[in-house]
Amino acid sequence: MQPSTKTRPSESLRALVGRGVAAVDTPALVVDIDAMMRNLGRMAEFARKHDMRWRPHAKMHKSAAIARLQVQAGAAGVCVQKTAEAEAMAAGGVHDIYISNEVVAPHKLARVAALAHQIAAEQGQLAIAVDSAEGVRRLARAMNDARESAGVAAVIDVFVEIDVGQGRCGVAPGRQAVELVHAIRKHPALRFAGLQAYHGKAQHMRTAQERHDAIGAAVQDVLFTRKLIEADGVPVDLVTGAGTGSMVCEAASGVYGELQAGSFLFMDADYAANERDAAQPQFEHALFIKTQVISSALRHAVCDAGHKSHAIDSGLPKVLTLEATGELEYANGGDEHGILRPAGGNRRVPQIDDVVWLIPGHCDPTVNLHNEMIGITGGLSEGKVERILRIDARGALT
Amino acid sequence: MQPSTKTRPSESLRALVGRGVAAVDTPALVVDIDAMMRNLGRMAEFARKHDMRWRPHAKMHKSAAIARLQVQAGAAGVCVQKTAEAEAMAAGGVHDIYISNEVVAPHKLARVAALAHQIAAEQGQLAIAVDSAEGVRRLARAMNDARESAGVAAVIDVFVEIDVGQGRCGVAPGRQAVELVHAIRKHPALRFAGLQAYHGKAQHMRTAQERHDAIGAAVQDVLFTRKLIEADGVPVDLVTGAGTGSMVCEAASGVYGELQAGSFLFMDADYAANERDAAQPQFEHALFIKTQVISSALRHAVCDAGHKSHAIDSGLPKVLTLEATGELEYANGGDEHGILRPAGGNRRVPQIDDVVWLIPGHCDPTVNLHNEMIGITGGLSEGKVERILRIDARGALT
Repeated sequence: MQPSTKTRPSESLRALVGRGVAAVDTPALVVDIDAMMRNLGRMAEFARKHDMRWRPHAKMHKSAAIARLQVQAGAAGVCVQKTAEAEAMAAGGVHDIYISNEVVAPHKLARVAALAHQIAAEQGQLAIAVDSAEGVRRLARAMNDARESAGVAAVIDVFVEIDVGQGRCGVAPGRQAVELVHAIRKHPALRFAGLQAYHGKAQHMRTAQERHDAIGAAVQDVLFTRKLIEADGVPVDLVTGAGTGSMVCEAASGVYGELQAGSFLFMDADYAANERDAAQPQFEHALFIKTQVISSALRHAVCDAGHKSHAIDSGLPKVLTLEATGELEYANGGDEHGILRPAGGNRRVPQIDDVVWLIPGHCDPTVNLHNEMIGITGGLSEGKVERILRIDARGALT
Repeated sequence: MQPSTKTRPSESLRALVGRGVAAVDTPALVVDIDAMMRNLGRMAEFARKHDMRWRPHAKMHKSAAIARLQVQAGAAGVCVQKTAEAEAMAAGGVHDIYISNEVVAPHKLARVAALAHQIAAEQGQLAIAVDSAEGVRRLARAMNDARESAGVAAVIDVFVEIDVGQGRCGVAPGRQAVELVHAIRKHPALRFAGLQAYHGKAQHMRTAQERHDAIGAAVQDVLFTRKLIEADGVPVDLVTGAGTGSMVCEAASGVYGELQAGSFLFMDADYAANERDAAQPQFEHALFIKTQVISSALRHAVCDAGHKSHAIDSGLPKVLTLEATGELEYANGGDEHGILRPAGGNRRVPQIDDVVWLIPGHCDPTVNLHNEMIGITGGLSEGKVERILRIDARGALT
């Protein structure tokens, strides 16, 4: 009753390695490894030039193999948003992980504490963010419980998150943060590691000036809070934050010590729509959906990639203009279909079998839709499949 | 180096069965099985009353276990959109499957043909839609090739898709469809089974009148095309289509013989926003995201479910109003977070640990984000976990 195993995706994907890009079935999530490695090199150089640590966000790629590549290129480790992502990264050989988010459920904190001890035994380090006294108390309790069963004492790094304009998690800059610092320092298994000050809303402000203004205000929030903490005799070792949109501002601030930008690696259509700051490295698109035309009518064609293939929360994908197809526009065709129409001066409606490459609007949730990324080298038309990158933390929500 | 297997989601999910809903970790995709079974009963009764076949779309739930429940309740089988979905349903014991979509890539058609032979050997039936002569030729070739290797002759049912207003796949109503019918009938391994006439855009027209008008026009397209085909001496055994939004119109048409509606089973916020036709069964919400507050500020709280937990292509989720939390509004907090604010007369900002239940905007792509659904009975507050429903065709894109 089982269909032939030859037809199961993972099997057929493994068989692809070494074959031409033409053999990649559609729709598929494809990573241009050459472009990705160039982006990685640009980021490493940027961080070196600014004498910054960088800890790219693995919530974007969710792949332990890519995280290891980043660490090899000089990254301090990775950020994640969820405990289950941290577990997936640790299982894949990443030993320096920061959960840049609040975890408050006791059964989740038990997992966090167990992971902290496991990673410490591997000479690594786990870190986490907090924004409430209750969160600190529960984390300390979980660390104590884990120490008893682990038999060794691990220390978890704890960042106090302040809200620098995102309006999401984090305490207000100022006294509340200082109180949390003191609460953390009461517990020997917790080490106050610094401030989490990420401004998510700044990332997609379209003009460089808007982003500079937003991060300028965030820097004032950080300075104000840091001064209060230091006035109590507590050093603030690190301020961490920044995304691909705003990273040049945090890097120039003299206040932030670590960049969390993740999307630079793949660059999506939404980030590409930002006005580029002159100081920003020129990151290339490295993530694509390969799709194929399955139906063609008088004025439009239909391809096999809809929003089960790519996330549309930050806009529809852009179509890569190729000589074979000319300029095309992608319109929403629902969960499984995309509508393609000739655009610009192009008059040719795509025909059945035409291959079309989409640049996703938002890379993070697009990656999360897939189980694997097809890593290719040598370009989208003439290249070949180099490796299959498993998306280890796909669906890792808890 | 592996984290404790106790912490891996599938393990912990299996351990949940029999426990209270409170033990379900967040964020989680939860199915109220009681409500789902009531919806299923209402649909079966509706189809009986109208003397219609129903073949619910499994692209919505992607679960072979649910497909089997539907067949037990009287469904003729299931629809799917992708070859890989058909394979997953067949592997899960569903033997009457209709790929209500175009498949044109030769290597995919080889899988379709292999599946047609496998299912035929199990006394089942595979069907597919076409909208091009090239598609018919390739399907026939694939069926012939598969027959040679299978050693037995299977016949695949083929529906000609006409575009009745969706503007996506399908030939124009009229002569083009007739030509495809004749093309199909040239091949002994293909059986012309009828017309595919689904009007996707009609599903979310908000007023009942708009939906009646749209389906009224579709019915005219079908009648016109059917008449031309029958004038050539070919019977049109079945017209298949309809979604949860418009199904009362197709059922009343006297032309459609089969309903493909799928979302009725779970009912999402978007379908609930339609003005209900008096003839429409009163379907209940049966699909929820359980989420928990991880951060609380002066005027808002943050829960652990963002758009990696639920699709937002058809709008943000609604929050179920519970006595404990009062009326709340959900605002977009990005991939991993939701922003909750008191709404209506409510003044209470949710606090850390508060459990909140979200009704997804669109059930199909929401289900596709998860690996499992937690099936509960006895209600969201007092109930218990009855079974874990694996989402067999999650990510089945090819």
